[in-house]
Amino acid sequence: MVPTKNPSISVDCVVFGFDGASLKVLLVKRRYRETTPAGEVIAREDFKLPGSPIYNDEDLSTSAYRVLEELTGLKQVYLKQLQVFSDPHRIDSKSLGWLNETYGFQTRRIITIAYYSLVKLNSHMVAHTSMRKAVWQDVQSIKRLALDHKQILGVALNTLNKQLVNEPIAFELLPKRFTIRQLQGLYEAILGFEIDNRNFRKNLLGSGYLEPTEEKERNVAHKPALLYTFNRHAYEKEIRKKSTLNFVNWHD
Amino acid sequence: MVPTKNPSISVDCVVFGFDGASLKVLLVKRRYRETTPAGEVIAREDFKLPGSPIYNDEDLSTSAYRVLEELTGLKQVYLKQLQVFSDPHRIDSKSLGWLNETYGFQTRRIITIAYYSLVKLNSHMVAHTSMRKAVWQDVQSIKRLALDHKQILGVALNTLNKQLVNEPIAFELLPKRFTIRQLQGLYEAILGFEIDNRNFRKNLLGSGYLEPTEEKERNVAHKPALLYTFNRHAYEKEIRKKSTLNFVNWHD
Repeated sequence: MVPTKNPSISVDCVVFGFDGASLKVLLVKRRYRETTPAGEVIAREDFKLPGSPIYNDEDLSTSAYRVLEELTGLKQVYLKQLQVFSDPHRIDSKSLGWLNETYGFQTRRIITIAYYSLVKLNSHMVAHTSMRKAVWQDVQSIKRLALDHKQILGVALNTLNKQLVNEPIAFELLPKRFTIRQLQGLYEAILGFEIDNRNFRKNLLGSGYLEPTEEKERNVAHKPALLYTFNRHAYEKEIRKKSTLNFVNWHD
Repeated sequence: MVPTKNPSISVDCVVFGFDGASLKVLLVKRRYRETTPAGEVIAREDFKLPGSPIYNDEDLSTSAYRVLEELTGLKQVYLKQLQVFSDPHRIDSKSLGWLNETYGFQTRRIITIAYYSLVKLNSHMVAHTSMRKAVWQDVQSIKRLALDHKQILGVALNTLNKQLVNEPIAFELLPKRFTIRQLQGLYEAILGFEIDNRNFRKNLLGSGYLEPTEEKERNVAHKPALLYTFNRHAYEKEIRKKSTLNFVNWHD
């Protein structure tokens, strides 16, 4: 049975991945038709964030997980609600026409709840998303997207930036074992500025959250560096200690 | 012209106030009819959070501000989006019947975006909300609410607790000029435990965010205490200083 889709509410997912050099976002192709002033109908295409109207038996996160699983094959994935986009004019009449035609709606308005997700962009992931015809695009190179998706991407990037310096989300984007150089590269790619190598290394290794493994990286031209893992347990213990009355005790 | 209301999307507002002794939330009465097994129709009432289906020319926050202004008379108010409640079964069939009857809908489902708001619960505010037949209820005394509003209140309370220790939101709930005793009372009422008087005073006065005025409190049985104001400027300057690479530098 085809599920009933809600014509007023959708989810859109901003899925970030890191390929070792730059921050990427997962996009899907949108095909639409445009009528020229001369009355000629032309087939066009552009890119959009993956998304879907919610099904009437789904809550929002179920819907977002469904969209992600279809594209990435992953059931367990880092996924957070970003923001609701509810501007009554967020979709122009042309795109509203596309939406109504695609889904068989007669809606005059749809609000979307944007989610963002962080995944490990390994060869397995790329194989899966390619099969679904989704592409990993360098976020810096994106000039425009369909609908209001460029705006949604902008909000997601801001949130990612803020989170990156406050929470250990970098490790969602890296392989389970990584070098300090890879970690620093990730910070620099997202924050957009260079970080002092020596301080970065000192601070992170001193934090107690990184654990050395007994392995070194392989197949590299330079001297192989030691691989580390993130100790989530140590991190969470520290957080609990810090979380009592931060505001009141701030001056200490 | 009556605005068109969206049958799939609503906003609900959790409005908190502090009366000097306990945390209050603003509620409105819901009147509904119930049919007994014998077929008799009985008029009933209960309480709910203030809310509204969104109008089709509104974005979500416009809608939430409208609900708040109608009840409190305030245009400028501390208002934050809390969470989307989208469980397909969040409203039972009886309440769905009430909703459809009240608004002339034929909806089978409505998602709500909950907002929470902090206001100064002064006599002016009470006069306005009484006129609108809204009541300020002690949050501790609330056993049940209509729809899923008890659950929404619970999420708002959790958020308020977390925010209170991390951000200077206490001052939204207090008069512009307040005593340290009032401020401590507010923290204790919301957090639900006693705070050591001497440390609280020392930490807050040492923080540089509180400024003494030249006034003392009036009409009190005890020795009148000095009134303070919150220096938001000093606070925000400090925050900006702290916000760079928190995670990376945590160990310092």
